[in-house]
Amino acid sequence: MDVVEFRPEPSQYAWTFGGAAPVREVEPGSVMRLWCDDAFGGRIRSVSDLASASLDPRFLNPQTGPFSVRGAEPGDTLVLHLVDLTPARDWGASTLVPFFGGLTGTDRTALLNPPLDERTWIYEVDRARRTVTFVAGRSDLSLDLPLAPMLGTVGVAPANREVRSSLTPDAFGGNMDTPEMRAGTTCYLPVNEPGAIFSVGDGHYRQGEGESCGTAVEGAMDVTLIVDLVKAPAGPAPLWPRLENDDEIIVVGSSRPLEDAWRISQVEMIAWLGELLGLDRLDAYQLLTQVSLAPLANVVDTNYSAVTKVAKALVPGLRPHDGLHADLRDRALAVV
Amino acid sequence: MDVVEFRPEPSQYAWTFGGAAPVREVEPGSVMRLWCDDAFGGRIRSVSDLASASLDPRFLNPQTGPFSVRGAEPGDTLVLHLVDLTPARDWGASTLVPFFGGLTGTDRTALLNPPLDERTWIYEVDRARRTVTFVAGRSDLSLDLPLAPMLGTVGVAPANREVRSSLTPDAFGGNMDTPEMRAGTTCYLPVNEPGAIFSVGDGHYRQGEGESCGTAVEGAMDVTLIVDLVKAPAGPAPLWPRLENDDEIIVVGSSRPLEDAWRISQVEMIAWLGELLGLDRLDAYQLLTQVSLAPLANVVDTNYSAVTKVAKALVPGLRPHDGLHADLRDRALAVV
Amino acid sequence: MDVVEFRPEPSQYAWTFGGAAPVREVEPGSVMRLWCDDAFGGRIRSVSDLASASLDPRFLNPQTGPFSVRGAEPGDTLVLHLVDLTPARDWGASTLVPFFGGLTGTDRTALLNPPLDERTWIYEVDRARRTVTFVAGRSDLSLDLPLAPMLGTVGVAPANREVRSSLTPDAFGGNMDTPEMRAGTTCYLPVNEPGAIFSVGDGHYRQGEGESCGTAVEGAMDVTLIVDLVKAPAGPAPLWPRLENDDEIIVVGSSRPLEDAWRISQVEMIAWLGELLGLDRLDAYQLLTQVSLAPLANVVDTNYSAVTKVAKALVPGLRPHDGLHADLRDRALAVV
Amino acid sequence: MDVVEFRPEPSQYAWTFGGAAPVREVEPGSVMRLWCDDAFGGRIRSVSDLASASLDPRFLNPQTGPFSVRGAEPGDTLVLHLVDLTPARDWGASTLVPFFGGLTGTDRTALLNPPLDERTWIYEVDRARRTVTFVAGRSDLSLDLPLAPMLGTVGVAPANREVRSSLTPDAFGGNMDTPEMRAGTTCYLPVNEPGAIFSVGDGHYRQGEGESCGTAVEGAMDVTLIVDLVKAPAGPAPLWPRLENDDEIIVVGSSRPLEDAWRISQVEMIAWLGELLGLDRLDAYQLLTQVSLAPLANVVDTNYSAVTKVAKALVPGLRPHDGLHADLRDRALAVV
Repeated sequence: MDVVEFRPEPSQYAWTFGGAAPVREVEPGSVMRLWCDDAFGGRIRSVSDLASASLDPRFLNPQTGPFSVRGAEPGDTLVLHLVDLTPARDWGASTLVPFFGGLTGTDRTALLNPPLDERTWIYEVDRARRTVTFVAGRSDLSLDLPLAPMLGTVGVAPANREVRSSLTPDAFGGNMDTPEMRAGTTCYLPVNEPGAIFSVGDGHYRQGEGESCGTAVEGAMDVTLIVDLVKAPAGPAPLWPRLENDDEIIVVGSSRPLEDAWRISQVEMIAWLGELLGLDRLDAYQLLTQVSLAPLANVVDTNYSAVTKVAKALVPGLRPHDGLHADLRDRALAVV
Repeated sequence: MDVVEFRPEPSQYAWTFGGAAPVREVEPGSVMRLWCDDAFGGRIRSVSDLASASLDPRFLNPQTGPFSVRGAEPGDTLVLHLVDLTPARDWGASTLVPFFGGLTGTDRTALLNPPLDERTWIYEVDRARRTVTFVAGRSDLSLDLPLAPMLGTVGVAPANREVRSSLTPDAFGGNMDTPEMRAGTTCYLPVNEPGAIFSVGDGHYRQGEGESCGTAVEGAMDVTLIVDLVKAPAGPAPLWPRLENDDEIIVVGSSRPLEDAWRISQVEMIAWLGELLGLDRLDAYQLLTQVSLAPLANVVDTNYSAVTKVAKALVPGLRPHDGLHADLRDRALAVV
Repeated sequence: MDVVEFRPEPSQYAWTFGGAAPVREVEPGSVMRLWCDDAFGGRIRSVSDLASASLDPRFLNPQTGPFSVRGAEPGDTLVLHLVDLTPARDWGASTLVPFFGGLTGTDRTALLNPPLDERTWIYEVDRARRTVTFVAGRSDLSLDLPLAPMLGTVGVAPANREVRSSLTPDAFGGNMDTPEMRAGTTCYLPVNEPGAIFSVGDGHYRQGEGESCGTAVEGAMDVTLIVDLVKAPAGPAPLWPRLENDDEIIVVGSSRPLEDAWRISQVEMIAWLGELLGLDRLDAYQLLTQVSLAPLANVVDTNYSAVTKVAKALVPGLRPHDGLHADLRDRALAVV
Repeated sequence: MDVVEFRPEPSQYAWTFGGAAPVREVEPGSVMRLWCDDAFGGRIRSVSDLASASLDPRFLNPQTGPFSVRGAEPGDTLVLHLVDLTPARDWGASTLVPFFGGLTGTDRTALLNPPLDERTWIYEVDRARRTVTFVAGRSDLSLDLPLAPMLGTVGVAPANREVRSSLTPDAFGGNMDTPEMRAGTTCYLPVNEPGAIFSVGDGHYRQGEGESCGTAVEGAMDVTLIVDLVKAPAGPAPLWPRLENDDEIIVVGSSRPLEDAWRISQVEMIAWLGELLGLDRLDAYQLLTQVSLAPLANVVDTNYSAVTKVAKALVPGLRPHDGLHADLRDRALAVV
């Protein structure tokens, strides 16, 4: 098994999906050991580091990559199995960015209100106890919360020659900001450009559903993953990102308004249930209605992201690509 | 403890929140044993009963009630603790209603497409195994799913003299269609009119999050609940429905577009966290961002409903009204 | 021709569509001479009258009426022809209401920002020059603007037993806040309840499209109108409010998000073009695409309202109800 | 005065804003005589040419350009004055594209309905009478409509390294599809990249507001325009596209949902009124409320576009950049 190690210098960060030259070419089947900086490029380090003074909107969500996958062609499915996500720093940070977040006016929901006050919270990581600690800034509360590492961004080059900011989630994946993107998860993405040209970044040590204030417990991350590829004849590439873990199959839709993000994830799940179970479309709609879970991912990014999940325990036969996920889990055992 | 039993005749069904005369007055602290017809008024009984032939849009979601609560005044908080929900029939039904549902054009998302085909699914209830059985109509799949009884509608008379259809969810509760409304849950609603004037209905034997096709596994329900009242001086009434179970506190927001339903549930949860923990508003926003769950309730009704939840295990001190929920759980033990 | 005169006492104001007892029954064909108070009930009279101190949210948009129309039955079309709108006061008022308006967080677009500053503007009316005068509060600008009287609210009792606040626009008309509702306009509304039960109010001396800050130049109004009725066999009642003036046919859709308000107005216009021209549905869609105008009405109320208009000069044959509008224009000549 | 003539070969078409190499560098002050193919690349030529058979979604809205403007730097304002738009063919075409348009499910408003029927309409141009002729496909109607040439797309390279499809409207302009983009209009766009890198395309011989079915009367266009540049010190670059004609100043906002597109156009107009009149922000909000017009541009593209307009006749002093528009009108006289 090939092992690719890569820790980018700041000058090597990518800031887009598409449009950046690959830093490496990797073989399908490779194990990758990567390091990702946090969404702030490490520039928020104390409660006195405020967003407007410390951050440049052109330099957010630095990506590690992009990587070109040998043999990947449009119509194929890129497979990324997250083996391990380990915080690479002893602290994470969250901050209120002016005119950004779900409960304030923004550049899109353009209002006349001044921005909310700026504030930063720093979370200490306790690796032994696997916690991060919330410390209120203006109130007397300190609270240990379980560490729950995930990646905010996993994406490929977009279709139709587009280049999108690393802050954007869409059909190509990207900044979906869903807690489902955690170790043990397999992510299936459509290949739009030769080589797929994928990157990862935006580590979160923990995040609620919706990422309400716009920033999770942001932290640099050591990422171990396995890259694989499903060639086109083996089945149609997904239209939207599909995820799988031991317990569930998952689709992430991203758009605005939020109901459209949800609709996308639902229609793609109906297609997936049809492929996996041979179900008639309206039967799949009915079954979905009674069994799917619909947690939000983010309601803050340039597109909002909504998740549709179906539990394998409820619906037998949800075994995409002939059990590829189980196979990747096995391969992962040899890696860690 | 007062025990009120009520099984409405069809002529006694209410079809609105507000605007209907109370069928009973009840004392705070009363136990109520109620029967609710299903959302279709029992008119969908076989797979050949299709919506357009069997249903009259003026007669959907029949309500059991309304009930007047003695002593309830605007500004108070009505408390309804669901002790038990038991299917009252051996079958449930789900159907595709033309121009209704989340993945079709509707009277609001007005499009030129013809309606989806009409279809009905009947689910047999196995009380011993506690399952309902999905049987595909055009495919070869039969599947037992866990019974998970809940109420689609729980609501009071609206504010500002309004009378709303029993198909509508809003600040007064109503047709929220959230799976959180199950046995063991305490529901806190604002009192807008003297007596609160509440009703319940729309039993679901099971529902996914979002209620995608517009109808859950709809079924008549035997409902046992305890009514209580928190008088105004004890705290401000919630602006939006708040729920509590043994594990979580929950807010349901209802509006369109879906992001506004979510925003409402988030802002109300921030207010609630502030009340319970004495947290500064932006500290509560930050904490919420890292700990809240955001499952959808419905994306099909006249307003969409979104849920924000916070786990008691994550955040110590979430004990509304001095432990009223725990007290109701104790009282419920004496009831069943 | 019957002439009905009515000037309500404040105790006679209605605050809802539906749910209020008619103050008069009128014959189809009657001329009505009415007086409407402004949206504030006359309580904003100087720049020092601020909304939060002067207004009670339960008492906004007082309606003159409702009136019962003899012989009107569900399925019929109520016809209201606005003969004349004349300001009944020498000043109008506009004010910023906390958490209300298109460019601020609201009770629905719930955010954490504090409300915008409160401000009030008073506009003097110059009847001779037919102007209202804008005077900036914090800047050095005074500007005469043409008087352009219109009614914010014209509505009937809703369908399905609902009672809606006079702040709401929907299929029953109501608080549509469109500048199209001016003298010379004929308004066609569906009859949902026996007698139609219509009311008018919310005079605006002038308003831009969108009513951005939430309040137009609000002013009491003397209203002269003719009531008429199209009985059901003469054609299907409109699903949504239709308007006609000498130059255009117009549909108003009201919902959220704004694209749904627009979609409603478009689909109803396609239906209307089909009825008037015998056009195939997709041909009507195509024609609409190239000829319709789409000015916004309001983006501030509980539903947003969008307008679709088609010019009679562009499309010959737009002559609803055999020229009823022209006939009403003739009848109006005898009235003024 | 420099005169630049350019008629692209199909191999020279650009399909994006940003990401394509400039075909020419031009001096500020240059006159340009350009030819643009239609949105379909000329592939829809008869009513039997249907979209799914004739069109490739990767090759829509071919752009003429991009052009690099000498001396343009980020922060400057690009000025494009449309001198003349003349149909370059004797026919235009409009077609229903599956899953595209405002009144059907789409890739974003993802639904389970099958697509609408495919249809194409061909419009003959009568240059003498300045009309295009609508001919119904399934009904007996033929109708001459006034020719009203406009450009659907005018845009620059986006900010933040993005490359966007020529189907997208956003802050960089692009596929705004507003009828305001006609001869006699001056368009002000923010410069995001050195050289501005602008292109034009998507000629419409006529379009209603909203572009409901997704395609206007699409036609190749001869375009004459003057390029100019306002350097940064002369004033802040607009955040969003601003337009000016002899009668109005205009802002175009593009986003989803539609209310956000409108909010953007309103807030940018408030900023513009503040710059031009020295108006306090809330005074500008108030004035805007009473004087602005809000016609829709498109409710079909990847972002929706909404327009806010203020008439110069209503508000004296609306004279951006010291009368640059009037100067360009003078210069244009020398060109035609």
